[in-house]
Amino acid sequence: MGRWEPNARGRLEQAALELYIERGFEQTTVAEIAKRAGLAERTFFRHFADKREVLFGGAGTLQEFLVSALADASDAATPIDAVAAAFEAAGTLLQERRETARQRQAVIAANAELRERELIKLASLASALADALRQRGVTDSAASLAAEAGSAIFRIAFERWINEAGQPDLPHLIRESLDELKALTAGK
Amino acid sequence: MGRWEPNARGRLEQAALELYIERGFEQTTVAEIAKRAGLAERTFFRHFADKREVLFGGAGTLQEFLVSALADASDAATPIDAVAAAFEAAGTLLQERRETARQRQAVIAANAELRERELIKLASLASALADALRQRGVTDSAASLAAEAGSAIFRIAFERWINEAGQPDLPHLIRESLDELKALTAGK
Repeated sequence: MGRWEPNARGRLEQAALELYIERGFEQTTVAEIAKRAGLAERTFFRHFADKREVLFGGAGTLQEFLVSALADASDAATPIDAVAAAFEAAGTLLQERRETARQRQAVIAANAELRERELIKLASLASALADALRQRGVTDSAASLAAEAGSAIFRIAFERWINEAGQPDLPHLIRESLDELKALTAGK
Repeated sequence: MGRWEPNARGRLEQAALELYIERGFEQTTVAEIAKRAGLAERTFFRHFADKREVLFGGAGTLQEFLVSALADASDAATPIDAVAAAFEAAGTLLQERRETARQRQAVIAANAELRERELIKLASLASALADALRQRGVTDSAASLAAEAGSAIFRIAFERWINEAGQPDLPHLIRESLDELKALTAGK
């Protein structure tokens, strides 16, 4: 192992996002990312398997956080409220990383392969949430529906958060999105 | 153009599904599909761009059907009821093709590249439905939510339809799934 580098992971992530936006994802090499971050290439590979994982390394962390939040949710919470509350808690953590999230989405939107990868991660997330609901005793189809609806609520709130002017609040947008789905399904 | 072959498209589709299940998708060639169907290879390429399109050619048709059904829906229908009704109407057409649908899902489930392709087609479908709702004057986020929730209802109903024993009725399962989402979001 090399010497400890302060915040190497964050510096590599920031350098990678800058280069992906400046040159395009395809045109950027790991060597360039490491150089921009002022770190050795081997340091990159201690943190990420490849240049794609810089963009998707957080997805596994988010999934673990959500599954754990669901496991801890009150027994009184309905499945969909429990899922939305888990996303709200995650939203609180994401809130301070809006600029990074915006850059990441711009890179993903520009590349078909990355858009596919994002869809796969989101499908895997919904599937993990459905499993976590089944662990709570929710029936099979209700678990799938609540997980899918909750994920849709999050995706739509996230997109608004990324695109709206000013300083939008992600947890607030998630609550709004949940309320809007409830109004829609109530026929209002 | 060659001579007209009765139901060439259906014969090619059936031959392809049989071979994908017997040998795997990767191991099957277009020449083998044409031979199994008793048709020339050039006939295959009059109907499908490649062997993957045999599995996804129907997705465009489904999307057009749903968008058109949404455009024709009563002004009184709520966005989510309009989406669910469009899927129900499509379900009536799909109902008689259950065995083909089962085979297709088995092939897709066995291949990561095909699973990705399926996710992309489903995302594109939800996006087209959201656009169709906006055309009806539904606000931006409500259109996205209703389209995503409606697509989730359909996916979950479709999965039950494929997997349940007996002769399950797809339109009925879609209605059940819609009612279940309504109950979930009403906190029941």
